[in-house]
Amino acid sequence: MTQSPTLTPATFGVGARITLAAMSDDYVSIVLGALEAADSTGLETQTGAVSTFVSGAESDLVRYLVQLVGAAGRSGAHVSATIHFSRGCPGEVVCELPGGAGPLAAEIPDVAATGVTAVAEWALYPLEDGVTAGTTPDHMRDIYAAIDFARELGTFEASEHFVTRLSGDVADVIRTVAAGWILVGRTVQHVTSHVTLSINSPSVRVDEIGR
Amino acid sequence: MTQSPTLTPATFGVGARITLAAMSDDYVSIVLGALEAADSTGLETQTGAVSTFVSGAESDLVRYLVQLVGAAGRSGAHVSATIHFSRGCPGEVVCELPGGAGPLAAEIPDVAATGVTAVAEWALYPLEDGVTAGTTPDHMRDIYAAIDFARELGTFEASEHFVTRLSGDVADVIRTVAAGWILVGRTVQHVTSHVTLSINSPSVRVDEIGR
Repeated sequence: MTQSPTLTPATFGVGARITLAAMSDDYVSIVLGALEAADSTGLETQTGAVSTFVSGAESDLVRYLVQLVGAAGRSGAHVSATIHFSRGCPGEVVCELPGGAGPLAAEIPDVAATGVTAVAEWALYPLEDGVTAGTTPDHMRDIYAAIDFARELGTFEASEHFVTRLSGDVADVIRTVAAGWILVGRTVQHVTSHVTLSINSPSVRVDEIGR
Repeated sequence: MTQSPTLTPATFGVGARITLAAMSDDYVSIVLGALEAADSTGLETQTGAVSTFVSGAESDLVRYLVQLVGAAGRSGAHVSATIHFSRGCPGEVVCELPGGAGPLAAEIPDVAATGVTAVAEWALYPLEDGVTAGTTPDHMRDIYAAIDFARELGTFEASEHFVTRLSGDVADVIRTVAAGWILVGRTVQHVTSHVTLSINSPSVRVDEIGR
């Protein structure tokens, strides 16, 4: 695999946006409390009106997001969290990193369980912005590897229209999504992934999420 | 443009998933009230633990989503809505519609204003599953056309990391996102788009959204 030794998570655009919603009159204190409970060491964070932008290495990102969502869920409120991961395309319409920079490999991070259970819907997008010498892009191979990883972790629930349904500890669910994004990112430069987690939903029975 | 006369919105996988969150102790009645207020004529809807799946023609989809989000916003609660549009790939990991089926053209729907203002973050993904004879895929051309449409409608706010920031009436914001997805969908079979809208946010000042 060919990759530039000068690429860092920050210059490669490794990051995420998270929108955290707490279905409670106390939502401000729940969300602010969760933001304070999450360890942002090593990360750039920027909270906006719609989402919080977080940028940095994959292991720091996953730790932060798991702690943030876990803390919000421990409030007992019904919480939904939408996370949008991206790598390989800093910027917006036009990637500031030119196509052909190549993929940037990363390890799948370990992360501690939260004790909070979530159900989730997940989409994973390999976005080919250029093919680099020495790589062999194969989206389907990598997406199947991501699904296999979900099955091994026990988070895979079902295939639905447009998404894969996951369930399990918030740590395992977010780790599954990050793992898919990282696995595809080993052969594709620009990869995004979107997941929405639902916690403490009154419409989810224990037998639906305990399989 | 080549396309099969047997393709319908349903068989082509034209649809969306929406997750609606109301930051209020009354979230159940707000969300159920909004679901009842939205006209689902012509659509297949299926409400799950994480999102509501909606499938049907683009004009019906846009009307339904605008009415749903607008009604939730009129409750006065701080509301966030995440919408995931998809076309050209019914199914999950493997499209049930084979690549090469070609794009399915649609008109940009008109929709009535809601009187409810939103800020939003939007991502648009052309996912090339196959190239059809007679089409000339050009993702960047179509994405620029989508951004131009947002500027004409007055919803374009700014380019951010990974997303485009929009603001305006809920109808204009959702119409902008649907228009981008439809415009790219005229030359690319499989297109998805994700948007998160925020309404009645205490962190948004009027001067930030009134430009």
